[in-house]
Amino acid sequence: MHKKTFASDNYSGVHQAIMDALSQANAGHAPSYGADEFTAAAIKKFKEYFGNDTEIFLVYNGTGANVLGLQTLTQSFHSILCAELAHINVDECAAPEKFLGCKLIPIPAPDGKLTPETIEAKIQRLDDQHHPQVKVISISQSTEYGTVYTIAELKAISAVAKKYNLYFHMDGSRISNAAVSLNAPFAAFTKEAGVDVLSFGGTKNGMMFGEAVIIFNPAVSQNFKYIRKQGMQLHSKMRFIGAQFAALLSNDLWKRNAEHANGMARLLAQELSKIPQIKVTQSVEANGVFAIFPERIIPKLQDEHFFYVWTERTAEARLMCSFDTTEGEVKKFAEKTRELLASA
Amino acid sequence: MHKKTFASDNYSGVHQAIMDALSQANAGHAPSYGADEFTAAAIKKFKEYFGNDTEIFLVYNGTGANVLGLQTLTQSFHSILCAELAHINVDECAAPEKFLGCKLIPIPAPDGKLTPETIEAKIQRLDDQHHPQVKVISISQSTEYGTVYTIAELKAISAVAKKYNLYFHMDGSRISNAAVSLNAPFAAFTKEAGVDVLSFGGTKNGMMFGEAVIIFNPAVSQNFKYIRKQGMQLHSKMRFIGAQFAALLSNDLWKRNAEHANGMARLLAQELSKIPQIKVTQSVEANGVFAIFPERIIPKLQDEHFFYVWTERTAEARLMCSFDTTEGEVKKFAEKTRELLASA
Amino acid sequence: MHKKTFASDNYSGVHQAIMDALSQANAGHAPSYGADEFTAAAIKKFKEYFGNDTEIFLVYNGTGANVLGLQTLTQSFHSILCAELAHINVDECAAPEKFLGCKLIPIPAPDGKLTPETIEAKIQRLDDQHHPQVKVISISQSTEYGTVYTIAELKAISAVAKKYNLYFHMDGSRISNAAVSLNAPFAAFTKEAGVDVLSFGGTKNGMMFGEAVIIFNPAVSQNFKYIRKQGMQLHSKMRFIGAQFAALLSNDLWKRNAEHANGMARLLAQELSKIPQIKVTQSVEANGVFAIFPERIIPKLQDEHFFYVWTERTAEARLMCSFDTTEGEVKKFAEKTRELLASA
Amino acid sequence: MHKKTFASDNYSGVHQAIMDALSQANAGHAPSYGADEFTAAAIKKFKEYFGNDTEIFLVYNGTGANVLGLQTLTQSFHSILCAELAHINVDECAAPEKFLGCKLIPIPAPDGKLTPETIEAKIQRLDDQHHPQVKVISISQSTEYGTVYTIAELKAISAVAKKYNLYFHMDGSRISNAAVSLNAPFAAFTKEAGVDVLSFGGTKNGMMFGEAVIIFNPAVSQNFKYIRKQGMQLHSKMRFIGAQFAALLSNDLWKRNAEHANGMARLLAQELSKIPQIKVTQSVEANGVFAIFPERIIPKLQDEHFFYVWTERTAEARLMCSFDTTEGEVKKFAEKTRELLASA
Repeated sequence: MHKKTFASDNYSGVHQAIMDALSQANAGHAPSYGADEFTAAAIKKFKEYFGNDTEIFLVYNGTGANVLGLQTLTQSFHSILCAELAHINVDECAAPEKFLGCKLIPIPAPDGKLTPETIEAKIQRLDDQHHPQVKVISISQSTEYGTVYTIAELKAISAVAKKYNLYFHMDGSRISNAAVSLNAPFAAFTKEAGVDVLSFGGTKNGMMFGEAVIIFNPAVSQNFKYIRKQGMQLHSKMRFIGAQFAALLSNDLWKRNAEHANGMARLLAQELSKIPQIKVTQSVEANGVFAIFPERIIPKLQDEHFFYVWTERTAEARLMCSFDTTEGEVKKFAEKTRELLASA
Repeated sequence: MHKKTFASDNYSGVHQAIMDALSQANAGHAPSYGADEFTAAAIKKFKEYFGNDTEIFLVYNGTGANVLGLQTLTQSFHSILCAELAHINVDECAAPEKFLGCKLIPIPAPDGKLTPETIEAKIQRLDDQHHPQVKVISISQSTEYGTVYTIAELKAISAVAKKYNLYFHMDGSRISNAAVSLNAPFAAFTKEAGVDVLSFGGTKNGMMFGEAVIIFNPAVSQNFKYIRKQGMQLHSKMRFIGAQFAALLSNDLWKRNAEHANGMARLLAQELSKIPQIKVTQSVEANGVFAIFPERIIPKLQDEHFFYVWTERTAEARLMCSFDTTEGEVKKFAEKTRELLASA
Repeated sequence: MHKKTFASDNYSGVHQAIMDALSQANAGHAPSYGADEFTAAAIKKFKEYFGNDTEIFLVYNGTGANVLGLQTLTQSFHSILCAELAHINVDECAAPEKFLGCKLIPIPAPDGKLTPETIEAKIQRLDDQHHPQVKVISISQSTEYGTVYTIAELKAISAVAKKYNLYFHMDGSRISNAAVSLNAPFAAFTKEAGVDVLSFGGTKNGMMFGEAVIIFNPAVSQNFKYIRKQGMQLHSKMRFIGAQFAALLSNDLWKRNAEHANGMARLLAQELSKIPQIKVTQSVEANGVFAIFPERIIPKLQDEHFFYVWTERTAEARLMCSFDTTEGEVKKFAEKTRELLASA
Repeated sequence: MHKKTFASDNYSGVHQAIMDALSQANAGHAPSYGADEFTAAAIKKFKEYFGNDTEIFLVYNGTGANVLGLQTLTQSFHSILCAELAHINVDECAAPEKFLGCKLIPIPAPDGKLTPETIEAKIQRLDDQHHPQVKVISISQSTEYGTVYTIAELKAISAVAKKYNLYFHMDGSRISNAAVSLNAPFAAFTKEAGVDVLSFGGTKNGMMFGEAVIIFNPAVSQNFKYIRKQGMQLHSKMRFIGAQFAALLSNDLWKRNAEHANGMARLLAQELSKIPQIKVTQSVEANGVFAIFPERIIPKLQDEHFFYVWTERTAEARLMCSFDTTEGEVKKFAEKTRELLASA
């Protein structure tokens, strides 16, 4: 029971420091809907990282953060460019289409990343009333493939956005993993790289629930409180999201968690790379490892440490590491892989 | 700091037994999105109350529960009948309109309750293509005015629903308060009274976050999982909602909490009724007290124990009691009221 | 067959001058979607009435004109104030809610007209994130009750709009009837009275199909072409709407048609007023007459000249006159009424 | 002025027989919103082609017909499979996404046609709550590339639909061109081939405005009248759409028009094929010709007979023929092409 897995960073639990913060916040009454001191503390922390000219709104989950963040940037006749396998395109059950009314334009991205070239190839039929008008470039940092955009890559995308008068949106559900990977401050690869709106992830990095929508572009921030409420993402007992973020952003907890998860992923990739029958398919830059396993050993491996097959056709697996993954588990997994290969 | 209030039952914190359940659930990994043992335990508990032929889905908050529950019952050309001051009509920032596309038809309800007569007066233009077609009667139990429908009243409404082939929806964000008020099992005034879909509240009765959509009508339950995901209400680390509900529904915690809150409201009403200058305006049947205060004392009273003025024009205040309201606080509030009246 | 009625001004056919214009436009090929000379001619005509700093877009019908016009003025968390029996509120099958996501706030208006007082009474909870934010006042000119706002009344409403930073929308599906009633230029009671967006009706005044969205406020006009296309209201063979409007706006055809219809309504009211058993209930200021008839004669009267009962409860009928209503028909109707009353 | 073009079949005017029908319908009053005899006559004609167990609804335009037809088949969490360049995907400004809330899944289709193989490759993640669920296969007949599905091809697609419990939707904005191409009755390649809902085009085959939504599947037809009204596609003076369709479907007018247009396209393709520098790129099976021209002659050719460049990159032009295209125009165009090539 409660066996550790490589299934997803949302299979992991809550970091003890977050649990403690929740307990401490649970005293007496507090104003609801964000007018409390814990939410204020979280926002203060965010502003330390992103600057005072930034608007921060706490929401429940990543889908909510993405869709509501995109709502600030679009009208329904706009389209949104994103990677073919972006979370907003394939894992949010068409929440963007329903809530925004917009079309998502998928761009092939074998390593999860868009480039100025692949983006420009999809900027079409501007000013043509029959066609939805491109308005947003949305990327994930780190990507769904465990890769991380460099700051230079981000600035190049931002330049395309500016050239065509588009907004730049970042799904940062794993932004802490990206930050430690780049060894750069959050602001350096978001605000300073031209991002307009950011989904800042908490749940996958040790929180129980809660994400933040960070708005850098003052032109689009003013109505977000209504968008959040109408979008069913306004928590009443908000202090319990605020307290978590205040803790995550204190004492480098976000960093320690992400560094650990990334480190475990590197170790896992390293171990797997030693096994000739296994092919690591993506550069391991954050907390995920993508690798092709001989199909016959997959079910038995999953029994040991569950994980998902990402691409059925090629038997490519996705192995996610979390703040609570241990070196022992990683080594045992590699060992088990070798065992299964030997015994077959 | 953390001073107790009568502002809202969502100003209160989390019951200690719920906090303990959260801690216990925080061990190792668990499958995400509801495939975990804690969510299974919560659903099992719900079925003990509502029967095995009931579908239960956990969501984040009351607005989400209401809107997504209503989505199972409507197409966009339908209309929904509700009380003028129903939460779905005035406190969800038009989330129902945006997400459902439906029109809400408000019905005047001075005590918060609809009746067969007031409902039938608004059933108009059936089969007329120019007019949205009535499809749902939505009520709140207990109501926004702290009143509680009797089982007979609910059955009478259900009869109207059946007569016109309408669905019957219940916003039960304070359903536990209604249950102890009626001294009846949940099923007796929901499923057995003809309700099709119920929002079952957790947050206002001692939970940190989480509500449940309970579907009694098997004809409408099959697609809810997609509605929940597209509605941005699917939590990844679902075990932490599951564990809370499993605890709330165990050892009569829901009942003890609600009994206490209702009892404090009764006490408060009783105390206020002794003061000639105060007029209690609604029958106190759940955990809320509505009362008109002399306007001049309101600001000072709010300093002591904050509460909201519900109707500016008449200086009618809403005083909500919670599982953690104490007898001392109630008495002190009444005393303070007397003091302020005397000193003025 | 093809018997004349008082049912609706959309029971009437197409004025011969419009038919001729359609025939003349039907020669050779013309660019589609509005890039043709007939559409250009219509827009030129409109600008003669409304000024060059006005944007004009042709659409199919009144519901489309209203909903898409309102789309330029709203985001989904806004609400729209309108008369309880406004077309947008009760006769568009919740198209506004579905397309805009907004809530409509109905205001009682026994004579069809809003006033500064009734409007201000519904401007509530500004800046409160739980409540949709009022953004538009929408009125009908002439109203659904055949009454007409004076220019002073319109300016008073516009002042309220400005005071609260709201937009002012006018459903002018019968705007020509209002213009002749006021004996004022279109611009005097629209643009110059502070209206931001106007639905300009064609179909009810002798056209086959087609309405126009007239945008006076330059701040909201820029994206309308996309709104129209996404709103499914962009006609391909647009020249056939353009040619109709060009004809309607030439040689005072709009005026002659509306003067005739209004005149017939006045005559009808005059005739009915002579009959003691009939009570004309509204001031007859445009082309509609509202009157209470003894219930027993209604079916036989409808056999003669069909009309709709507007209010079942009171047997109040709505009698609409058109550009093609004849004096003979009006007199015959009054005579028939007298006959039926006598014979009963 | 009014020069003929190969730009689009919606650059053409209205067939004289349709104009005559409009004039004849313009006598006296007629009930609005479809309760008139002309609409009844049109529906009767449609039933002669499609059978009495078919529901027919008249709407304004092709986008409306497609989107509202798809509304009968979907809930917002569904997805719709279609060709990459399907009208619903690239030429309706995201009206499907806004109105339906659904995701469209584009399938590469170099000749405009889907196949069972390309369809099945996109049927993914069934029963997975994170992903919109495929519910509809939508095709265009004839296609956007002037090709026509054979009856066998359609039945093969229908078999895929049945296998996965999907609906089958057909955009028949050029269905008459397909019918004469197949030399088959309408029903043979729609209803009898398993189509659930069909958009039946009128405007591109000689009408002024108007399309029809034809519903073969009785399970989905019952609420269409509300969908049409809420979708802003219900015409008040409906007799003028009814009269056009009644005329189009009488005396084989639809057939003669389409035969002529298809014949002109064949002639044009034949003439162009004789010119070595021109490459006809698609099989010419309906009324469109796709051909690559040397880029330098395109502007001068467009001066003579305007047409659109379909693919900028390859200088592929789309040349559409209409019911009113003449043999002389086709020959003159080919001649001009030769001239320009010679003179360069």
